Amino acid sequence: MAGTDSTAKKTEAPALGAPAIILVKPQLGENIGMCARAMLNCAVTDLRLVAPRDGWPNPSAAAAASGATQLLDNAKVYATTQEAVADLTFVLATTARGRGMVKDILDPHAAAKEIHKHNSAGPNNANTEQKCGILFGCERAGLDNDDIALANAILSIPLNPGFTSLNLAQAVLLVCFSWLSAGNPFQPAAAPETPVTNEQQNDAPASQAEIETLLKHLESQLEQNNFFRSAEQKPTLLRNIRNFFFRAGPTRQDVRTLHGIFKCLTGNRDWK
Amino acid sequence: MAGTDSTAKKTEAPALGAPAIILVKPQLGENIGMCARAMLNCAVTDLRLVAPRDGWPNPSAAAAASGATQLLDNAKVYATTQEAVADLTFVLATTARGRGMVKDILDPHAAAKEIHKHNSAGPNNANTEQKCGILFGCERAGLDNDDIALANAILSIPLNPGFTSLNLAQAVLLVCFSWLSAGNPFQPAAAPETPVTNEQQNDAPASQAEIETLLKHLESQLEQNNFFRSAEQKPTLLRNIRNFFFRAGPTRQDVRTLHGIFKCLTGNRDWK
Repeated sequence: MAGTDSTAKKTEAPALGAPAIILVKPQLGENIGMCARAMLNCAVTDLRLVAPRDGWPNPSAAAAASGATQLLDNAKVYATTQEAVADLTFVLATTARGRGMVKDILDPHAAAKEIHKHNSAGPNNANTEQKCGILFGCERAGLDNDDIALANAILSIPLNPGFTSLNLAQAVLLVCFSWLSAGNPFQPAAAPETPVTNEQQNDAPASQAEIETLLKHLESQLEQNNFFRSAEQKPTLLRNIRNFFFRAGPTRQDVRTLHGIFKCLTGNRDWK
Repeated sequence: MAGTDSTAKKTEAPALGAPAIILVKPQLGENIGMCARAMLNCAVTDLRLVAPRDGWPNPSAAAAASGATQLLDNAKVYATTQEAVADLTFVLATTARGRGMVKDILDPHAAAKEIHKHNSAGPNNANTEQKCGILFGCERAGLDNDDIALANAILSIPLNPGFTSLNLAQAVLLVCFSWLSAGNPFQPAAAPETPVTNEQQNDAPASQAEIETLLKHLESQLEQNNFFRSAEQKPTLLRNIRNFFFRAGPTRQDVRTLHGIFKCLTGNRDWK
């Protein structure tokens, strides 16, 4: 249904506040293409791929995208999930079950509201950018626990408990459509008239990258002080620590304060 | 994700008040199969086919249904749309545009509410059965005006105006999922009868007192290491720290881990 010039222009304009869709280790190019189509149906255009199995670009993705090729051309590819979410301030992990992680579990409607709230809460029309993202795992096994640990909350799609098998593009479609339906993204939000204050800057959520830097510091310090008694325990302990800090959703000020606290506890010597 | 007997039973039981899905002159068997899968995902099981192009049954439908074959086996086939909707009391016609017909146009959410309302208004637990249905046209051209004339209202899926091309199964999925989400056709999962494990204990939220103890330790340690540079700053800094940790909602395990981290950072000497 492409066609007139004005239609084409609308296709190019991303909807305000649309979340990034991050496919982690997607297997089939065809599925990536169908995800792109489902995203563009819902005016969601920021596609990110983490280590796609068959490399990138992938001609079978374009064949399945039914015209949503621009979105594929603009897709960003990352080696790790961590890099793919580095600039995001609110991240959801899509899973069928809670996996025993202590995180909020949102259905697509609640997730959509949370994303809209997140976008409108921050001074997102000003210099401080707020950006949400939604992680989807690979077709075979979904997200692994280390990916989920990076998320602020879990997104779970409530389906017929007797038949929950949903393909990747359908999951992406339901989530993106819930986002589209929950807001009115084609109406531009009025720009805030007041300039952003320092206080608002401090209240802004820290980016994943800012939290990551904090946790890397912490990890190396703990390593140095023999916190991880055994090599087997280390991954679990680290995942729990990461889970806690990402789930907590620290502000920029919180991250600065935590740097200060950790530095102070080490006697100011070793914290850089 | 099929499996146990109880799961299979749930698959068979249609959800109360689910609408019939009527595919009018569907072309590809594969699309019929994908529609069946999307329907069963949403506990919608009454599939009706009007004059399917390639006859019925169609082996390529079963191949694409990913296990939703029972639904295909039970599908009813009709020669005309009129016959297919004869027993229904409320019918929606899915189209991309209103087609100049004077009918209400509902989005999937409003349609779902209307269907639920219709079911609960009627004596659907008595002998007189109320039944709703949703018409979907063929892949190439959609519904024709004679089909639409049979409907009580039009169902239109609001999408990105620049890219509205949606395949048949995706349209069925969005409509069925909206129906499923608008009601509560399943009983909430029963509480687990198994005793609480150690792991679940760890997942339990820490009490305010447990967090308080952690923060008191932290505060005295920070005091000792001259974290609070001035007496004026101290209350604000403390409030921010408390805010962060209470807002984060740590579990019991998180509190234990944080004790461990703080103790480790102080070189294990001063943390009690």
